[in-house]
Amino acid sequence: MHDTVTISEVAPRDGLQSVGPFLATEAKIALVAALHEAGLRRAEIGSFVSPKAIPQMADTPAVLAAAKRLPDFECTVLVPNRRGFEAALEHRPHRIGLFMSVTESHNKANVNRTREESFADLSAITREALEQGFKVRFNLSCCFHCPFEGVVPEATTLDWVGRAAALDPNIEIAICDTTGNAAPDQVGRIFRQAMASWGDRFAFHGHDTYGMGVANVAAAFAAGCQVFDSAAGGIGGCPFAPGATGNVATEDVAWLFKRMGIATGIDIAALLKAADAAAAVPGAVPGGRLRAVPAVRNI
Amino acid sequence: MHDTVTISEVAPRDGLQSVGPFLATEAKIALVAALHEAGLRRAEIGSFVSPKAIPQMADTPAVLAAAKRLPDFECTVLVPNRRGFEAALEHRPHRIGLFMSVTESHNKANVNRTREESFADLSAITREALEQGFKVRFNLSCCFHCPFEGVVPEATTLDWVGRAAALDPNIEIAICDTTGNAAPDQVGRIFRQAMASWGDRFAFHGHDTYGMGVANVAAAFAAGCQVFDSAAGGIGGCPFAPGATGNVATEDVAWLFKRMGIATGIDIAALLKAADAAAAVPGAVPGGRLRAVPAVRNI
Repeated sequence: MHDTVTISEVAPRDGLQSVGPFLATEAKIALVAALHEAGLRRAEIGSFVSPKAIPQMADTPAVLAAAKRLPDFECTVLVPNRRGFEAALEHRPHRIGLFMSVTESHNKANVNRTREESFADLSAITREALEQGFKVRFNLSCCFHCPFEGVVPEATTLDWVGRAAALDPNIEIAICDTTGNAAPDQVGRIFRQAMASWGDRFAFHGHDTYGMGVANVAAAFAAGCQVFDSAAGGIGGCPFAPGATGNVATEDVAWLFKRMGIATGIDIAALLKAADAAAAVPGAVPGGRLRAVPAVRNI
Repeated sequence: MHDTVTISEVAPRDGLQSVGPFLATEAKIALVAALHEAGLRRAEIGSFVSPKAIPQMADTPAVLAAAKRLPDFECTVLVPNRRGFEAALEHRPHRIGLFMSVTESHNKANVNRTREESFADLSAITREALEQGFKVRFNLSCCFHCPFEGVVPEATTLDWVGRAAALDPNIEIAICDTTGNAAPDQVGRIFRQAMASWGDRFAFHGHDTYGMGVANVAAAFAAGCQVFDSAAGGIGGCPFAPGATGNVATEDVAWLFKRMGIATGIDIAALLKAADAAAAVPGAVPGGRLRAVPAVRNI
């Protein structure tokens, strides 16, 4: 197993995207700065999406500009389509995040396209993005469970993982538990098979909807995964996945790895302050457990 | 891996022992009945301990008498010493639970004896209990982390596990994370080594103090463990282990295994009712996550 892991903070995007009212740009920038101050070196800053579809992400260019001034900080912005890619070309995040679902019904609910349509578009954008010097994250949603189709056959997930992996050896592929319904045995099996077939290029994106978030992160790590998405304060959830709530909390994931002796570069005390700020965002529904533990406030 | 597991419910003992004010005997009996109704077939009913030391356990004989009338229900009572064993001889639980810590300082804080003194006494009680037809659970506390000594060397834990295992092949040995500080890699290593050396006779007793409870249960299961302690509502915690709070919640553990397709015999909806009752006990501090998830209320 690895002795270091990378945590990619997603509170500014996945955490906030469903939250209303609009959080002032300065508050978003302050949250990103607090996360960087806590030692996080990678974050999903926002989304180049229509402000009509997701009003909270309307100021992504301004938040990204501020985030890019933080030293040693890799900034990802989600790109849902070609229009989003054009915004990426203008505002230059370090990495673009593409996404599609491995189930037809969730892909249609989320982006109103078939999987084949999405994959064709994202394949073209991937090629252009690599040519233009972007890093690419290819997110596959609903890899374990779909809000409309239930438990996803492992062959379906691995088929799409393989197709994404074949696009280019230099893209990172996130295997996402969008609804929080994954179980650790399932996570372990998928990651072991994906890594055995396509190497060490996968990330795990998990939710803690049913309290399985940390167990699933531990299972992905045990299978060899070393990149994990999480949101400070456990905020977040997909607006187009009914019942899906909080991302697994960054502070819970950081605590897990601290206890396992795996380096994350994170200062727990500073992270708890950032997590408190994320949890206090008006309209956000906080999750996670570590913030409620008195003992860790004195470490 | 196994396709069934046994959950031993500990809310009536570990869950309630630190709680004040005194919970009426009838309420305790009703809680035990609700847990049985939910499908649990094994529980730690109480403790034959001095009512001065733990007033909440003073009515263990009455609760046990009621619990023994429930069909197909294995009742354990904790026996801290010879006086407790004499009570067991009188009231006849199906199984007695003995306990000592693998760290000297916690054993002294908890029972005011050295480990060698405890082990000598418990060895003698084990032999007599088996002769008298009791099943025996030998609980080893602080197998991963001690509130006074920090992380426990694995050799120390395995030494005491081996000594307990050598007492008799028919006793069950619980490897306990008393403070909730265990990490899943540590749990996996200890269980793999214990089971490789001494066979399939171990139980895992975990706490969710820092949110690692479910991950640790999953790690013990992956290593081959098939008996798990948990408390409905996530109540509980050792009164002589500073900072130690709730046992891992039975409903969270049941959900984990349900998602993994591992049979527990538990009805989630009925269990949630029992867990709500446990969490509502005056003075109890509830934990766990599943009770807060709206979606599971409609399953």
